Amino acid sequence: MTKFAPANLTSHYAVIFTSQRGDNLEGYEAMASKMMELAKQMPGYLGVESIGDESGFAITISYWQDLASIKNWRENSEHKAAQAKGKSDWYKHYEIRIAKIEQAYSKK
Amino acid sequence: MTKFAPANLTSHYAVIFTSQRGDNLEGYEAMASKMMELAKQMPGYLGVESIGDESGFAITISYWQDLASIKNWRENSEHKAAQAKGKSDWYKHYEIRIAKIEQAYSKK
Repeated sequence: MTKFAPANLTSHYAVIFTSQRGDNLEGYEAMASKMMELAKQMPGYLGVESIGDESGFAITISYWQDLASIKNWRENSEHKAAQAKGKSDWYKHYEIRIAKIEQAYSKK
Repeated sequence: MTKFAPANLTSHYAVIFTSQRGDNLEGYEAMASKMMELAKQMPGYLGVESIGDESGFAITISYWQDLASIKNWRENSEHKAAQAKGKSDWYKHYEIRIAKIEQAYSKK
């Protein structure tokens, strides 16, 4: 299984989620897997690239067809519950950046 | 030292570099550090967020003020030499995506 998201698409968007977890990780892993699976079923989902390190710092970039798909995913009720839990319990710090991909290059 | 790049800036760009290294890593770490240092001195550089895993898969996102800063960095002669070496020797696969940040949220 590749760790790369599809590339060389025409216009699409990235949601760059960089995060630092805290010490309370109860329920975190199960929720993270669940959200990864749920995202894949959302309309406009194109792929994801994700890595975390042993300090709890992680970068997850999900790729979406358009802003409407991102908004729909952000407002999904299960995802909203996960977001609330992330904000209150799991993450000490996160940055979410929504960005429009304008150029792309690859080596495969 | 924070692993996060500055956020809540006005208009700016991300260069999303996802990569899979191969087995030949001769000179790689030294060059990677050198490029990180050199990037910081470039006009329009805003910050970087980077993680790699034990399989050699890595995500490095650098943030820049505008497309002109990114172009200037891409065309820097030392960086060009590093890019050529990366393409020929170190990376099996990479994706580079240049994206304009349109929305940002954070928890600190």
